[in-house]
Amino acid sequence: MANALRALTMDAVEKAKSGHPGMPMGMADAATVLFTRFMKIDPSQPEWPDRDRFILSAGHGSMLLYSIHHLLGYADMGIEEIKRFRQLGAKTAGHPEYGHALGIETTTGPLGQGISTAVGMALAERMMNTRFGDEVVDHYTYVIAGDGCLMEGISHEAIDLAGHLKLSKLIVLWDDNGITIDGSTSASTSMDQLARFEAAGWDVFRIDGHAHHALIDAIAKARNTRKPSLIACRTTIGYGAPTKAGTEGVHGAPLGAAEIEGARDRLGWHHAPFEIPTGIRAAWEQIAERGRLAREAWEDRLAISEKRDAFKNAVSGALPADFDEKLLAYKRELSETAPKVATRKSSEMVLGVINAATDATVGGSADLTHSNLTITKGLGSIAPGKFGGRYIHYGIREHAMSAAMNGIALHKGFIPYGGTFLVFSDYARGGIRLSALMGLRTIYVFTHDSIGLGEDGPTHQPIEHLAMLRATPNLHVFRPADAVETLEAWHHALHSEGTPSVLALSRQNLPTFRTEHTEENLTARGAYVIRKPARRRDITLLATGSEVEIALKGADLLAARGVDAAVVSMPCWELFEQQSDDYRRQVLGTAPRVAVEAAARMGWDRWIGERGRFVGMEGFGASAPAPELYAQFGITPEGVFDAACTLLTCA
Amino acid sequence: MANALRALTMDAVEKAKSGHPGMPMGMADAATVLFTRFMKIDPSQPEWPDRDRFILSAGHGSMLLYSIHHLLGYADMGIEEIKRFRQLGAKTAGHPEYGHALGIETTTGPLGQGISTAVGMALAERMMNTRFGDEVVDHYTYVIAGDGCLMEGISHEAIDLAGHLKLSKLIVLWDDNGITIDGSTSASTSMDQLARFEAAGWDVFRIDGHAHHALIDAIAKARNTRKPSLIACRTTIGYGAPTKAGTEGVHGAPLGAAEIEGARDRLGWHHAPFEIPTGIRAAWEQIAERGRLAREAWEDRLAISEKRDAFKNAVSGALPADFDEKLLAYKRELSETAPKVATRKSSEMVLGVINAATDATVGGSADLTHSNLTITKGLGSIAPGKFGGRYIHYGIREHAMSAAMNGIALHKGFIPYGGTFLVFSDYARGGIRLSALMGLRTIYVFTHDSIGLGEDGPTHQPIEHLAMLRATPNLHVFRPADAVETLEAWHHALHSEGTPSVLALSRQNLPTFRTEHTEENLTARGAYVIRKPARRRDITLLATGSEVEIALKGADLLAARGVDAAVVSMPCWELFEQQSDDYRRQVLGTAPRVAVEAAARMGWDRWIGERGRFVGMEGFGASAPAPELYAQFGITPEGVFDAACTLLTCA
Repeated sequence: MANALRALTMDAVEKAKSGHPGMPMGMADAATVLFTRFMKIDPSQPEWPDRDRFILSAGHGSMLLYSIHHLLGYADMGIEEIKRFRQLGAKTAGHPEYGHALGIETTTGPLGQGISTAVGMALAERMMNTRFGDEVVDHYTYVIAGDGCLMEGISHEAIDLAGHLKLSKLIVLWDDNGITIDGSTSASTSMDQLARFEAAGWDVFRIDGHAHHALIDAIAKARNTRKPSLIACRTTIGYGAPTKAGTEGVHGAPLGAAEIEGARDRLGWHHAPFEIPTGIRAAWEQIAERGRLAREAWEDRLAISEKRDAFKNAVSGALPADFDEKLLAYKRELSETAPKVATRKSSEMVLGVINAATDATVGGSADLTHSNLTITKGLGSIAPGKFGGRYIHYGIREHAMSAAMNGIALHKGFIPYGGTFLVFSDYARGGIRLSALMGLRTIYVFTHDSIGLGEDGPTHQPIEHLAMLRATPNLHVFRPADAVETLEAWHHALHSEGTPSVLALSRQNLPTFRTEHTEENLTARGAYVIRKPARRRDITLLATGSEVEIALKGADLLAARGVDAAVVSMPCWELFEQQSDDYRRQVLGTAPRVAVEAAARMGWDRWIGERGRFVGMEGFGASAPAPELYAQFGITPEGVFDAACTLLTCA
Repeated sequence: MANALRALTMDAVEKAKSGHPGMPMGMADAATVLFTRFMKIDPSQPEWPDRDRFILSAGHGSMLLYSIHHLLGYADMGIEEIKRFRQLGAKTAGHPEYGHALGIETTTGPLGQGISTAVGMALAERMMNTRFGDEVVDHYTYVIAGDGCLMEGISHEAIDLAGHLKLSKLIVLWDDNGITIDGSTSASTSMDQLARFEAAGWDVFRIDGHAHHALIDAIAKARNTRKPSLIACRTTIGYGAPTKAGTEGVHGAPLGAAEIEGARDRLGWHHAPFEIPTGIRAAWEQIAERGRLAREAWEDRLAISEKRDAFKNAVSGALPADFDEKLLAYKRELSETAPKVATRKSSEMVLGVINAATDATVGGSADLTHSNLTITKGLGSIAPGKFGGRYIHYGIREHAMSAAMNGIALHKGFIPYGGTFLVFSDYARGGIRLSALMGLRTIYVFTHDSIGLGEDGPTHQPIEHLAMLRATPNLHVFRPADAVETLEAWHHALHSEGTPSVLALSRQNLPTFRTEHTEENLTARGAYVIRKPARRRDITLLATGSEVEIALKGADLLAARGVDAAVVSMPCWELFEQQSDDYRRQVLGTAPRVAVEAAARMGWDRWIGERGRFVGMEGFGASAPAPELYAQFGITPEGVFDAACTLLTCA
């Protein structure tokens, strides 16, 4: 059965003239044992919520996954797809992509992401289990990880978190083949991985990764310990290839016809390319049949469970029916009370309403809870063995936080949000990108979003980060200007099931401008006129977040000199791009434009045009109280006034 | 003496009304022992090359460093600066910033960067030692790291690398105080740090961080082992504060007058704020005096060393006198031979000349050596205990690579360059940003720079990365179009002592367009007309890298329809920004413009204006052979032609 995986891999990579045969051939035995003996999946129902999760963290070995899915009979993974490996439009993309073919649990390829995403899945499983009981939620999360996954820093963050929380149903099979792209792992690492995982609170096993009995024994034991488990599978990369096995030559290139022929001989596999004997196919199909029976038994249990509706609702990701109403009521209240608070504070206030209105939200922070203001009353902390809470102490681990949030969202049942300072979105880039690529409803609460954070200085002051995030496809970057926009941003983010959101929030207090209640979510328009010109529009001032206040004050200065300014708040560029041409023209107007944002200029030329002016940052920030920094960098009403007056005559 | 550090910290944070007193007060004993007994520095010559390096990885505890520098008599760290902690223009910025005050070895604040940068420094020390011998280079690298540093993923990458290479002169003092911002470390980690570091090949010690004799003993032992050392210093955060010590309340906020008074009592420190008794000051000054004597002895040794000139030259960072000439000769050769190779390949060819012309360059890759093409003949690999080579196998550790490169550049003696795929610049963001903030000559070789990498698919295809890097202040982002531009980019990067560079290089082959040799480095202009219009300029096509070929072919299509196009190659936007208005106008022209780049649009509006068109990526890529992807996404000569024809009449 394992040789079927090897043969399909060799053949597909050869036909594609590119790909990675080494890992699938090396881990074919481990994967075969895992699937034949343990995996609980029903290929006819790939979304069955209580299935075991299988994560191919070493995503370059995608042919391992595709071969398995082909043999298990996933509806979209016929032999033609295997033959079209890595071709345009094929289900068999170079790396496994979530949503691209059935049964792919997460997108992997960037090393270390899979194992870290799996931590989020395993955590979500325990949280759902706590809510709905063993009869409805009780499954394992299995990972195949390579040396690269374990060398990446994110793996440290993830295994520390998993070990701390005692995620005992998480089992990692490490493809310990001693080879990386550059050659032997001994060229770059001397890590004792078993000792390392033990230090992180894991159970560890070391076995021969080609010995089926040892694999069975280790996985069976790992399933019954009280900690997450690492099984080091000593393997030969490219197992079966006569001359290239055990070398980096088999990692990421086709074997070539002669080598494949030799491998067929050595493996005793005497079948034509892409041909699988009926007996072997039948053996794989038994796994699917076992899974179907398990799924049916689960359906029966669910049908009589008193938590059935709640469970289905949680998995559907739907918000409660009265959710919008509650938020709208609070929006009215905010408009009426017009609090002067930082947007991170109004975010906390809004979260108070959100977290009371739904129990789907799961908060957290990378150890900046009381700076990000991400916790609200009664959430309860997740702790080792205690999974009933709704707040995760991710630790000082931004990257693992983002990956775990992805895992929680992928698992289904929760809407994860997590906080850090905007500048440390740098550390989470890898995970944020995958949120966007996979189209997940993850919400990043990035506070201290400009030089407005003050004394901590340039290492903590984001400059290029808004541009970096805005340039990322399928990511909504909100920078609300006041409490009402903050609520609107949260509202839109929670409804964006296919797009992750970033909320960039201020440290410093800001007035509430939106004192007239609107039913419409103006933030969802991306940009709108927040101050109309008195008579004609001489100039348009564009701003986001904390600089809307500055633009409005700049407009006052201009008004005193007879210049009539419109002020546009632009909380979300991506949503503004999606508006009609008419609406965009109407908002932007035809008068000259000045943009003000305490960040890099990159991207603003799209909105201000060639004649426009930009008031913002040209380099890194500095350490000083925030008001002094704004003055120092000229991001002031006077700065806006001066910029405007270069474009027209100020009396 | 330790209490002097505590008192200065309390007083400065109190006066600033912001800052972090907890760590300096907790680690005052450890720092005092380190400096009084071991540190080899001469505050009158902060740049003395053979000084010990001291890295405050937990950079929020900056007052520890400033207090020490004040007491040691650094020329720019008078008591007035201590009193101006965190104020605009003060030497005492919120976090230690390299170049901002004397003796600051590296910028810290983003957690984990310091310890990882220190690995680069300790490696550079061994490499310089191998070249110049014990009498000229023989110093230690000491680090104070906090829980946050050790939780961040980058620390895993760094300690794995350091343990592997047996950087025995690297000694990390871990402030093991059990407290993070959110409270007890037990809320988020159960890591056995000592076991973890041992697994990575370190020697480990555990001591009471307030017991001077234990500190002396541990540091003395750590200096004499054959591995890097971790000393876990069990401390009380905010040691001395009567009610807040040992709690997160003392981490990041002023103590308040009453608490400070109580601490003064408890510590037996009966001096006015900012006042240091003469005896204690004198004791600190003895450290400086010891350092001065050591430095003078070293000067004597250097004076009689036969390697004196070579050493001074290496530390100066100067390139050999004939360097430019050799590069220019090779540029002529490239123009004449006009190779059709990928820019990653021409980069390798150019590196062959560079690495032969100077021995200052030190290459490496995050395990993609033969994809990035970063190694050249005879460089020799750095290996455990073998530091004579010039090529570093960084492993699958992009983040630690960037930090180590920073450390190597900061140490002086080498020019580090390192490679990975452009998309994985995500993983190295934290280090790249610090390269830019510190103004270091680090060179990032980022290959596979677009959908042109093909089959590996969207996880490996950069889209937003050029925008992200271009938005970063003080970073030159080069995307050369052919072999000649690649050489010019390398040439400029090597001469940019105060600015890091990124070279974004293609996987796919590209023709050499620059077949006429120019003495001038046109790439250093940022942008230039690569194809002049035949008569008048009807339209201007802007492109970078692999899309210059597409723009040129688009111009051919236009010419066939009577449209006269200029083509502008824009290998480096930042340098183009620095040109005169005249030059920029001349290059961009007044005709309508079309830009083509296989990446996100973000930033291009700056160059194409409101009327302009952009041919590029609107979302993520896909998995398929590169030519099919270019066709699929319309990034073709025909696509350029069509875009141009929306702007003018194509006959």
